[in-house]
Amino acid sequence: MRPDLTDLKTLREMLSDAPKENDTARQKAAERNGQLTKPPGALGRLEDLALWYAAWRGDARPEISAPQVIVFAGNHGVTAQGVSAFPAEVTVQMVANFEHGGAAINQLAKAAGASMDVHALDLDRPTADFTQGPAMTEAECLAALQTGWNAVDPSADLLVVGEMGIGNTTSAAAICHALFGGSASDWTGRGTGVDEAGLANKIRVVAEAVALHETADGLDVLRCLGGREVAAMAGALAAARALRIPVILDGFICCAAAACLHAIDASALDHTVAGHMSAEGAHGALLDRLGKEPLLSLNLRLGEGSGGALAINIIRSALACHSGMATFAEAGVAAG
Amino acid sequence: MRPDLTDLKTLREMLSDAPKENDTARQKAAERNGQLTKPPGALGRLEDLALWYAAWRGDARPEISAPQVIVFAGNHGVTAQGVSAFPAEVTVQMVANFEHGGAAINQLAKAAGASMDVHALDLDRPTADFTQGPAMTEAECLAALQTGWNAVDPSADLLVVGEMGIGNTTSAAAICHALFGGSASDWTGRGTGVDEAGLANKIRVVAEAVALHETADGLDVLRCLGGREVAAMAGALAAARALRIPVILDGFICCAAAACLHAIDASALDHTVAGHMSAEGAHGALLDRLGKEPLLSLNLRLGEGSGGALAINIIRSALACHSGMATFAEAGVAAG
Repeated sequence: MRPDLTDLKTLREMLSDAPKENDTARQKAAERNGQLTKPPGALGRLEDLALWYAAWRGDARPEISAPQVIVFAGNHGVTAQGVSAFPAEVTVQMVANFEHGGAAINQLAKAAGASMDVHALDLDRPTADFTQGPAMTEAECLAALQTGWNAVDPSADLLVVGEMGIGNTTSAAAICHALFGGSASDWTGRGTGVDEAGLANKIRVVAEAVALHETADGLDVLRCLGGREVAAMAGALAAARALRIPVILDGFICCAAAACLHAIDASALDHTVAGHMSAEGAHGALLDRLGKEPLLSLNLRLGEGSGGALAINIIRSALACHSGMATFAEAGVAAG
Repeated sequence: MRPDLTDLKTLREMLSDAPKENDTARQKAAERNGQLTKPPGALGRLEDLALWYAAWRGDARPEISAPQVIVFAGNHGVTAQGVSAFPAEVTVQMVANFEHGGAAINQLAKAAGASMDVHALDLDRPTADFTQGPAMTEAECLAALQTGWNAVDPSADLLVVGEMGIGNTTSAAAICHALFGGSASDWTGRGTGVDEAGLANKIRVVAEAVALHETADGLDVLRCLGGREVAAMAGALAAARALRIPVILDGFICCAAAACLHAIDASALDHTVAGHMSAEGAHGALLDRLGKEPLLSLNLRLGEGSGGALAINIIRSALACHSGMATFAEAGVAAG
């Protein structure tokens, strides 16, 4: 299922008509969970994860065998405003590092038994500086959404989407400020590590950008304040929903992409869990707005999908228990 | 190195003379960490874990290839006081479940690529009811410590110790109350799921037991208020230190065993990290006393080593990044 995203209206309609949880599978999974050789509830969130996963896969006793990690990369015109501690050419350098297997996400995907794909989106054509005008035209935004949609392997059974893009914490902060209000400083953090003056500059940029565009519509915000890799992540998240592939959200930028979908349809992220809480300041507040409790909180602030990939084995372990454990009857254990 | 633990004094001396971190390996690992293709500190706690692990293994670029999970099982005379929601025969039934691969810990160890061993300690001879006298004689306690010590595979490169023993949250609560004071209710929780009356009864039992024995010495507390599986865990933790095998602590009972060693020597747990914070009420306070911040907090309260096993892949991933990532120089990435 790879629809032509000819306009943003089509995407809006698809988000509203997307699949829901399979209640029968959830019910059967809950029945099985109650019979496993453990005190009721003793596996805590692992039990919730197993039921959620079963409901999305439509299978009361599933396993995870084909997780996919996709890293999208894009360049941002807003780097002209001096918002990052790293030069913009690091984006293309890091894409080469991903392709040669040298980055953190390569090691984390491998440790999680996940396949990994890298999509560099027009790195030689940065988005427009969104303090001056929209980051993307509608056609550019749709092309990036489509790239993300098409990148999802229909045979994957768990998805993590990550990103690389010098300047993209500024984009994510602007998205959050546009969608959720508050002040620019509420949503703006240090990204890869800007100093005090750099942070003040980022806050100015975010405030100016949001004042310029004056929209809180999810897809307009994505187009005006996002980046190609941010739009691609949103496209991949929407595709995963259509394909009933559960998703582990990564950090601040991934969740900002997710927030654009959430603003269109509050159920748009029901097939996702939050992999971790990042050290990027506003990520906790963003997760709260999305109603997501993170699985991990290990002070990561790398992006690339790193926190999401790290959580793959948590979900795999939850399913291994759910689908692999003996029942009280099978094991001859007294049920208390 | 399998010493004869002929008396508790020998163990005390061994704890004080145990190996320390290798500072050279830590320093070299820190230098490597600073050159990896990521912003400084962006991998958060994964970086701390990699340096800690390198220091204990004496290897600046280690990997994890042979984690071991050991589950110790014991029976507790204190179950005569009606402290558990499950009958005591569940201990032996669950040991059979471990041996047949049907328990949660079997699935979690497998998902973590760990070997798993089960040691049932004299299940037909429960410890004495410690509201009436010491749980174990010195000979019994030493035998259990020795079993734990000998159970550690010297070729393991990461260790998780877990337990099964109906009644052992009562033992762990009594250990904590004896070591750390406060009131019995501070340290007593619902275990596998006792009701309000059951909880009140557990609190009474813990208070009476601690009042009876009047000791805060780590090894005396272990002997008087512990159980065979608790002592075996302590023996395994001490052995791992001697063998320079880093350990992931599990939940409340594992940490109570660890606390007995910590009471003898404050550095006795330097080779350990806390795998998770359990839903058993007092585990958070116990971790605070041990100075440990948990890696996971997923509301587990199963024991068996489940939370520790779940954290194996976190540490494996930390080392995969540390040892597998490219440096800025290798990847041709600008270092910011």
